[in-house]
Amino acid sequence: MHQFFEPKSIAVVGAGIDRTSLGALLLNNIIKTFKGPVYPVNPNYDAIYGLRCYPSIGSVPQDIDLALVITPAHTVPPIVEDAVLKGVKGLIIESAGFGEVGEEGRRLEERIRDIIKGTSLRIWGPNCMGIVDVKKGHIFSFMSPQISHGLRSGSVSLVVQSGMLSAGFLVELSSQRFVGISKACSIGNRLDVDECDVLEYLLNDPETEAVALYLESIIRPAHFLELTRTTKKLIVLLRGGRTKGGKRAAVSHTASISRSGKLEREILKHSGIILAKDFQEMAEIANSLVLLPLNPSKNRVGIITFSGGAGILSTDLLEERGFVVPRLSKEDKKAMEKLFPKWMSPSNPVDLFPAFASFGPHQAIFHAFEVLVKGNSVDLIFLHYFAGLYGEFEQLSAMKNLSNTYGKPLFIWAIGLKEGLDGFKEKAFSLGIPVFSELSRAADCLLACLKRKEGIDLSQIPNPKALDQTEDESRVIGTPHPDKTTHVLDTPKSKRLLEQYEIPYVDEKIVTSWEEILSFKDEKGFPLVLKGIAPNITHKTEHGLVVKGIRNEVELKEAFLNVLEKLGGKGKVLVQVELNSPYELIVGFLRDQHWGPVVMLGMGGILVEFVRDVAFAPADLDFDGVLNLMKRLKASWLFEGARNVPPIDKPSLVKLVLEILKMGLMNDKIMEIELNPVLLVAQERSRFLKPVAVDHRVLAFPSHGDEIL
Amino acid sequence: MHQFFEPKSIAVVGAGIDRTSLGALLLNNIIKTFKGPVYPVNPNYDAIYGLRCYPSIGSVPQDIDLALVITPAHTVPPIVEDAVLKGVKGLIIESAGFGEVGEEGRRLEERIRDIIKGTSLRIWGPNCMGIVDVKKGHIFSFMSPQISHGLRSGSVSLVVQSGMLSAGFLVELSSQRFVGISKACSIGNRLDVDECDVLEYLLNDPETEAVALYLESIIRPAHFLELTRTTKKLIVLLRGGRTKGGKRAAVSHTASISRSGKLEREILKHSGIILAKDFQEMAEIANSLVLLPLNPSKNRVGIITFSGGAGILSTDLLEERGFVVPRLSKEDKKAMEKLFPKWMSPSNPVDLFPAFASFGPHQAIFHAFEVLVKGNSVDLIFLHYFAGLYGEFEQLSAMKNLSNTYGKPLFIWAIGLKEGLDGFKEKAFSLGIPVFSELSRAADCLLACLKRKEGIDLSQIPNPKALDQTEDESRVIGTPHPDKTTHVLDTPKSKRLLEQYEIPYVDEKIVTSWEEILSFKDEKGFPLVLKGIAPNITHKTEHGLVVKGIRNEVELKEAFLNVLEKLGGKGKVLVQVELNSPYELIVGFLRDQHWGPVVMLGMGGILVEFVRDVAFAPADLDFDGVLNLMKRLKASWLFEGARNVPPIDKPSLVKLVLEILKMGLMNDKIMEIELNPVLLVAQERSRFLKPVAVDHRVLAFPSHGDEIL
Repeated sequence: MHQFFEPKSIAVVGAGIDRTSLGALLLNNIIKTFKGPVYPVNPNYDAIYGLRCYPSIGSVPQDIDLALVITPAHTVPPIVEDAVLKGVKGLIIESAGFGEVGEEGRRLEERIRDIIKGTSLRIWGPNCMGIVDVKKGHIFSFMSPQISHGLRSGSVSLVVQSGMLSAGFLVELSSQRFVGISKACSIGNRLDVDECDVLEYLLNDPETEAVALYLESIIRPAHFLELTRTTKKLIVLLRGGRTKGGKRAAVSHTASISRSGKLEREILKHSGIILAKDFQEMAEIANSLVLLPLNPSKNRVGIITFSGGAGILSTDLLEERGFVVPRLSKEDKKAMEKLFPKWMSPSNPVDLFPAFASFGPHQAIFHAFEVLVKGNSVDLIFLHYFAGLYGEFEQLSAMKNLSNTYGKPLFIWAIGLKEGLDGFKEKAFSLGIPVFSELSRAADCLLACLKRKEGIDLSQIPNPKALDQTEDESRVIGTPHPDKTTHVLDTPKSKRLLEQYEIPYVDEKIVTSWEEILSFKDEKGFPLVLKGIAPNITHKTEHGLVVKGIRNEVELKEAFLNVLEKLGGKGKVLVQVELNSPYELIVGFLRDQHWGPVVMLGMGGILVEFVRDVAFAPADLDFDGVLNLMKRLKASWLFEGARNVPPIDKPSLVKLVLEILKMGLMNDKIMEIELNPVLLVAQERSRFLKPVAVDHRVLAFPSHGDEIL
Repeated sequence: MHQFFEPKSIAVVGAGIDRTSLGALLLNNIIKTFKGPVYPVNPNYDAIYGLRCYPSIGSVPQDIDLALVITPAHTVPPIVEDAVLKGVKGLIIESAGFGEVGEEGRRLEERIRDIIKGTSLRIWGPNCMGIVDVKKGHIFSFMSPQISHGLRSGSVSLVVQSGMLSAGFLVELSSQRFVGISKACSIGNRLDVDECDVLEYLLNDPETEAVALYLESIIRPAHFLELTRTTKKLIVLLRGGRTKGGKRAAVSHTASISRSGKLEREILKHSGIILAKDFQEMAEIANSLVLLPLNPSKNRVGIITFSGGAGILSTDLLEERGFVVPRLSKEDKKAMEKLFPKWMSPSNPVDLFPAFASFGPHQAIFHAFEVLVKGNSVDLIFLHYFAGLYGEFEQLSAMKNLSNTYGKPLFIWAIGLKEGLDGFKEKAFSLGIPVFSELSRAADCLLACLKRKEGIDLSQIPNPKALDQTEDESRVIGTPHPDKTTHVLDTPKSKRLLEQYEIPYVDEKIVTSWEEILSFKDEKGFPLVLKGIAPNITHKTEHGLVVKGIRNEVELKEAFLNVLEKLGGKGKVLVQVELNSPYELIVGFLRDQHWGPVVMLGMGGILVEFVRDVAFAPADLDFDGVLNLMKRLKASWLFEGARNVPPIDKPSLVKLVLEILKMGLMNDKIMEIELNPVLLVAQERSRFLKPVAVDHRVLAFPSHGDEIL
């Protein structure tokens, strides 16, 4: 692959004179940026821009390492033949009109593949923009010269199966995002050289520390995986062609058959690749990976901000991604106090605005940074900065030094007045400090840095499990209510209430003797469930008071004796028919302190916390309102029926919800009603499943608890 | 509330002379931007900036509509008393040092609340930045004058519980994001005036079309909901204080007790609010809502691009959000053809780069736009533009006119060279066309516009169900393999293979008579499952060949006769013990055409497609590798045990997976193995659940199918 990245001589086939033609643009870029000999090839001219022009590759007397081709597609096969004869080592075909346009183009590609078979000539492209090597200053591409000014040199290399290179994506990255680029490689249709060839070269390239790839398919998956698994360099991948429309477009773009799917995403993640969801994000992640070598065990962030709101939002975004924004240690708090007015106590996020007046913004920031970097509260420091108001930020390089000395990475979110902002970003870039324009992007990039080679899929975060569980959330889905001023109604009492509102309930019976159980069994058959009901025990299962799946008389007897023993003379025994349900629901009513009467409908069962598929609404719903609530569940497709699962009887479910609402709204002593689980049970002579409540809990305000009925 | 937004006269209490002091900044802003009479109040001066200065509010001889206060917190209560006596209508306390700093500050707030009780004086703040009315040019805030230049007038009003206003967030929105602002309201601690007061005013304000709020808590939830449900204006909310750290920070920022959680998010969504996840996103959504009144039934997007890659990625991002990027209709394709070279056929996304050379970029874009806007293929048009290379885009206003005429909204993703880009955005802004800097942001904003009053949570998309289901995805989770060159091994044959590899399997028996079933029942008890096994029928359930939950002999007999009848003399009857499992797994091996041998572990059961919790890895795993694979499941916390669910016997599961891998790898005629479901079953004398396979399918390459064993 060295012939492509470090050629000793270059021929430009299709070199042109008309300054707006691709052939002229390409030749000009080579002349301007390549130090070695350049040979224009075009039978129509004797000389171009003062260089001798040759009619063909074969007629160039000197050796040619690399030839760039920009002639119409149908003229390319003879040029390739010529190149083979001449002993050219590499050919970059930048012309379009090949596999991406259909059958004829595919035949052209096959012809070329046949020509190079068994030779040492490697072909890059066709239908591509070639190579831009920002470090070396090479532009082996027909990109507009105006664009190349903005490029910024760094350690991120790009591999893109797209003309985005020409289109200024590179400039956007460099000038707006301050991403430093090493090599940008547009690989097009990959007739011969593919992403693995290029990736392998880059992973061995001392000028590349991270590789960002935009690919519409992965041609040699096994090799690709091996490369990613054996390197220490960091790889970010953006995958185009994920949807139906996207796959179709990929075929007409670079003739790629996209097979993107869950399997691919999972395998790539497993191999330590970071999956991005947008172009700039991909590049910013790669840039962060180069600049911020985070230690996965050091995830405590100190935030220095001029805006309380930005501090709070950053905390949320970072904690949602597994970071911690801790309180300041006693010592750090003390050290920070000298910056603050008496009436304000410093905390983390450090909201520095009050200190700006006394110390000047930069001095205040520097001092706060010093406290955090030398202290013991945090491992990373996230600075929020408004540029353009306060002149030159002279302390920034000292901060970077401290950051290095103490091994605590610094990253920055900056907004501001245009000129000031550009100057500030320039300075931060020169110091190797990553700067972001949005808090959420900063948080995503940080996450990638923390996980590094672990492999993550950025379209899948944030992880809702990281959200703080507030009372209102945990209450209705199973954990005991912390409010001690309520009490749980006795089961028989609340059961009578449910009956009054005609809530469909499983067949069950409170039994006092073995004979009663037997007669229940004779009527209902197996399997059965036995429950011990003790006063003040709401979580029966945890106390071993529930025996499920009783299949015969022997088991029934055993369970009965067992539960009786556990109850120790207090409480009652309940026998229930065990129902078969393809899934479980929860229906709830709640007098929320904050929001007032609220209805809850959610998926239940063991997966409930993990799926978190639950919808809430104010309790003033009518029939259509409940239907809408049902639709808002992610699992609502199940209600229509699915393979192996009959549809549910929607009016029955709506009625059940409405009755629970009525029961809650009519009895203002009721704090909470929870039917959990509500099973979906097959009915005779109906193809619809009917909801049947199997357990319940009613919470009441205590002083009135006994007056409900 | 009019006294705050349209005062007739203003007093500035704490007005200062030192130009860097907040009191001077505030007074200066009022003098410069407010047309009515201004009264500085400060006992230390007789005059400030040529205006007579008064020692107190009471000593001002004229009426005062609004007083702005920027004196230290402890001095404020007497000022409020004075204001009440004077008959001032509104007071904005911009000073900090109140509830957010602790007990003492809270007492100050209470004193002030007592003072105004029963009076007509309303108080805004404290601890806030007041009001900036961009339309009217008012700056009732101490923000730096340099900042106010960049503000851009529009129809989005902001309500933020934060000093972000001062900190240039407004400038960032205006100058970088081209969001047009009507009123920006910083409401601080909300001692009296709260978000509902301000929201109500804005929803009735003819200069406001959409409201974006950043809130750390919602004080009057019922009123807030009523306002949002009864208005036609659009509301976007960013919620600060979602995590533990964020909640803590909210207390010390604006003394807000954040109760954010699932319940709140759901209720807000239900009431038609759009939930954002970052500041700029919030504002850009609001701006889009104003500019793009999308019709929810018109979701077909035409994409005009200069980059195939950007076209593909846009297609993915839009289709993942429920839009469609359709093929061009015959007529539109024909009309588009005149722009393209002969060798290239136009499609959607319309990759225009090849047309740039012949028509010039702007003319080419205009023509393509004309075809789409007048044609019948799409409802919206998404233009990708690179600014700064091609001079003035003169056709843009004609395009906006066409867009209006044909009712097809136009939105733009633009990158480019700095100056050109700013000028282009300026022009698009003046025409009312939204411009985005990132494709994913554009797609998110479009989604918000499509859903409008439906309510969405932008931290929850993209919806993975929108992804195209590729073979590899659907195959292992249940649908038949489309490749007809494979065949399903006969169940007894594959069962023998599984036994050979010691895969734990449910107790079952192929039976040929009623007596055999009875003896199985006597040994195993109820409940039982009966399955009819017919050659070439893999989906037994769909053919009515599975009877579950058989609870007694009567049901058993009925099921047996039923299955026999359905089999019609072909096939066999299988009787199985019905096991009780808290959840189901799927274990699979797959010789993927692309990735080679692959292992799959996932959550099974009815929720599998909806949860999509499945991990894949190359099949070369060892014990630790399988453990890692298990950890990658979102549901892996279940394996450790949870309430009501015992932990699983991990070594047993690892062993099962490894045996399946061995079986797959050792028999290269096997295309696919699927154990589905694998149940987790309680064992005697162990607190761990053990995996037991209950059904399976082995797919083999046909010519060798019979040679496997």
